[in-house]
Amino acid sequence: MSLASYQTARQALITEDRSLRLDSQSQYLDALGPTESVQKADGIIRKIRATEAESVWSKETERIPHIFPGMEFLTAKETIQSTELFKWVRKLPKGALLHAHMDATCDAEFLLRTASEEPQMHVRASVQINRETVGSTMPEFQAMPIDFQASPYRSVTNPDYEGGAWITINSARDNFSPELGGAEGFDDWVLAAMRIDPEEAYVKYNTSKKIWTKFGSTFVVARGLLEFEPVLRKYVRQFLLTSIEDGISYVEMRTNFFNKTVIRSDGSDNFSSAERVRLIGEVIEEVRGEMNSQGRGDEFVGAKIINITIRFISSEELEWYLDDCFSLKQQFPDLIAGFDLVGQEDTGVPLLEYLPKLLEFQNRCQEAGLSIPFIFHAGETLGDGDRVDNNLYDAILLGTRRIGHGFSLVKHPHLMKLCRERKIAIEVCPISNEILRLTSSMPAHPLPIMLNHGLTVALSSDDPAVFGNLGLSFDYFQVLVSSEVTGLTTLGVLARESLLISELEDKQKEKAVAKWDRRWQAFLKEIIQTFES
Amino acid sequence: MSLASYQTARQALITEDRSLRLDSQSQYLDALGPTESVQKADGIIRKIRATEAESVWSKETERIPHIFPGMEFLTAKETIQSTELFKWVRKLPKGALLHAHMDATCDAEFLLRTASEEPQMHVRASVQINRETVGSTMPEFQAMPIDFQASPYRSVTNPDYEGGAWITINSARDNFSPELGGAEGFDDWVLAAMRIDPEEAYVKYNTSKKIWTKFGSTFVVARGLLEFEPVLRKYVRQFLLTSIEDGISYVEMRTNFFNKTVIRSDGSDNFSSAERVRLIGEVIEEVRGEMNSQGRGDEFVGAKIINITIRFISSEELEWYLDDCFSLKQQFPDLIAGFDLVGQEDTGVPLLEYLPKLLEFQNRCQEAGLSIPFIFHAGETLGDGDRVDNNLYDAILLGTRRIGHGFSLVKHPHLMKLCRERKIAIEVCPISNEILRLTSSMPAHPLPIMLNHGLTVALSSDDPAVFGNLGLSFDYFQVLVSSEVTGLTTLGVLARESLLISELEDKQKEKAVAKWDRRWQAFLKEIIQTFES
Repeated sequence: MSLASYQTARQALITEDRSLRLDSQSQYLDALGPTESVQKADGIIRKIRATEAESVWSKETERIPHIFPGMEFLTAKETIQSTELFKWVRKLPKGALLHAHMDATCDAEFLLRTASEEPQMHVRASVQINRETVGSTMPEFQAMPIDFQASPYRSVTNPDYEGGAWITINSARDNFSPELGGAEGFDDWVLAAMRIDPEEAYVKYNTSKKIWTKFGSTFVVARGLLEFEPVLRKYVRQFLLTSIEDGISYVEMRTNFFNKTVIRSDGSDNFSSAERVRLIGEVIEEVRGEMNSQGRGDEFVGAKIINITIRFISSEELEWYLDDCFSLKQQFPDLIAGFDLVGQEDTGVPLLEYLPKLLEFQNRCQEAGLSIPFIFHAGETLGDGDRVDNNLYDAILLGTRRIGHGFSLVKHPHLMKLCRERKIAIEVCPISNEILRLTSSMPAHPLPIMLNHGLTVALSSDDPAVFGNLGLSFDYFQVLVSSEVTGLTTLGVLARESLLISELEDKQKEKAVAKWDRRWQAFLKEIIQTFES
Repeated sequence: MSLASYQTARQALITEDRSLRLDSQSQYLDALGPTESVQKADGIIRKIRATEAESVWSKETERIPHIFPGMEFLTAKETIQSTELFKWVRKLPKGALLHAHMDATCDAEFLLRTASEEPQMHVRASVQINRETVGSTMPEFQAMPIDFQASPYRSVTNPDYEGGAWITINSARDNFSPELGGAEGFDDWVLAAMRIDPEEAYVKYNTSKKIWTKFGSTFVVARGLLEFEPVLRKYVRQFLLTSIEDGISYVEMRTNFFNKTVIRSDGSDNFSSAERVRLIGEVIEEVRGEMNSQGRGDEFVGAKIINITIRFISSEELEWYLDDCFSLKQQFPDLIAGFDLVGQEDTGVPLLEYLPKLLEFQNRCQEAGLSIPFIFHAGETLGDGDRVDNNLYDAILLGTRRIGHGFSLVKHPHLMKLCRERKIAIEVCPISNEILRLTSSMPAHPLPIMLNHGLTVALSSDDPAVFGNLGLSFDYFQVLVSSEVTGLTTLGVLARESLLISELEDKQKEKAVAKWDRRWQAFLKEIIQTFES
């Protein structure tokens, strides 16, 4: 073979090999606007990435002895934030955030500060907190009735503190033992219980099963702060506002009504699931109104709720949640987007065991003419052909609209084909997967396999309050630096598609995409102008 | 949908999804003999695996805080050896070992001991070895002419030792400073330089790029011991005998003639590449003869050489190796099986740069009617679409018969299809990939993706002298415990196929497979009888 004909055959082979990728197909590329500006901007971003691969991601420091693009997020976060590339990723209009657990979407510090403003919020510990217990004892929070008499102890660090006694947050904080750092020490104690730190992820609990012990416990702590009407309202608002600041224009928040008891402003319970959905709806409208009145209507199109419960409950309990979801959908047809089962999949009940209830629910919805699609978590595992990995079969057989995580999907050639044909999108949570130890770093993540096989992927943040990957920029960044195939064009296609595969109604979708298109063009223009001048 | 029809649809979906796997196809299954005994034995092995997943792989110890099936090999090795499952995997007839670098196939201790028996073998260090230098200074070995006068120092630890002075191994060993452990300390010093330990793999050099620093240096140390005719002869013999003990009946050893100088028994150089091939051929015949005379003819069918050089040389240098390979093939048509370029792919010269020489070589072979197929290393990387990952395109365009590693192949849907259609097998080296940090552990390895997508895989040990995975049992074991789809049947199919995809001639293949079939049936019988009685 001559060199010239070899080169021709080689180019044809590469083109064929990448032909399944969305960003190789004209229908997706054309939608991004004039080829010339897309390619120019893409080229500029590639140059920045290449430069920083050397200037940033090859420079070892004492703190980061093993540095590389796409490395462990908790260690790399500060470095990521210092890059030029991140600055541009922040500005990218990102479309929809489709996989995020509402109760882990705002910075833990914000949650603690917001809750502390409420005099009804109390804290306790199971034992007195001192040098020995502070590392292993988690705080517990609860909003109390207005006339509740807090315990006479001023802090959980008091030598005579009796385990279990409730103290107001502010008193506990102001009087936290100076030996343990005083008020700041209190904050550290609480925040550490709501976040995963690098030592925990990469040393202490460095397996996909173990890290869930810590991960699960963060929700227990946060829940106490969140289960209070006024805090919840501010939290949802903060989630939407910070999402908007990060370039996200629409969210579907997985919302858990597992915690059946939420406290009303007046201290009475039970603030029902319907009241909570109403509250969320009010906040969405409020934010939408504000954005419109600021002339920023293109930046926010709305939000919906995916109703979830945890895959540890019995089939009988599941029935309660399905009934509740059914009734919420009747009351709030525009807000309820679907139903899901969440929680640690490796140790949870497989979908197959819930099958009778799930099929019943589908029949009931069909009879009532209600559309409540399943949007299941599935394949969030390292397993191959075990009952966890097999959840993917059931998710797809049950008609899941998208797949949450789908980490193990790449092991399933026929399911991948079905996902392509039926346009079942995969909600990939890169940083979550890495911190929860399904992958050691981004270069080892199966995402490139999915993209190269033509799957539609919605990059998602999962639980940013715990992981620190607030917004979508960190996840987009980690993906961008871990592949030479992926470029700005890829991110553009993914962002635009995220709106199209959302549960927005068709007309809303059209509007949302038109808004995104305008912002994308402005974004391309800004990149090009910055580097041409 | 009714529950019954759901279950039918589910089973059909799983069957379809796994239909590409070799161990799902009747042509491969039928070849394993009577279904009943295959299934029975497979079931027994699955039970042992399930039992030990609990009794062994869930029991944390102080030394192994994170224990799980398929965990880091260097930490798990002793535990693996203690299991019942390993005992059976050891006994499995494994067919061919198709990817192993000859100069890293025998236990490092064997090499040191064997070399020490030769009075001509000398050692030196660049500086005097003491507490400060022992951890960072590697020994260097060389066979010297018979009349060579060793330096008067008795050991490299002598306070007055001058860096660079040659001492006989035995003197250096016997007089190694007692402070550094005496003779045992000498062995530790040398062996540590030829192996990778858990601290190095999992802490100190814990990235795929860094670990190569240590990995590469082990070959430099071993080379000095190996580059001596009598040592080389005993080494090749040991490699074949230990392979046979592990159930391997045929090997293709990648043999490096990069080290142009090997010392003859009489201390003269240069023991040429042709002389070395002849030596290897003699050892093969010797072993074959011994096996036959012991009535163990079924256990060994022979061995071949894949001629290799390192992907750091210039195109001009490559020409020398291609010429040498061409000439060796003319002299030893039955021994030379193919040609390959090896070494760290991430930092090496891409195949594309060698293209003119490689195409020329192909033309020359064709004209001469010589069959010297390429059997390329490619895709031993975490890259996606970079020039390293792209080696896969060139390997396939250049007609590679198999792919060495192919770790990144799963990112290439069209290339996977071509590999299926053209029966290009992937030489997967599970433990090598894990120790060289392409994967953090076996459950995260892409092997299940390859198997489920219908690729033919030859499990291989790569460099067992460095990794400690001597034979194929350790690699087979790690694969068996990391997937619920994979069972004894899978291993049987892989072992049998390894002979069929080898470079044995058709008639030799037939014989080799017939021998394997007999041993396989005996193996199944032994399992079944052991557990039925």
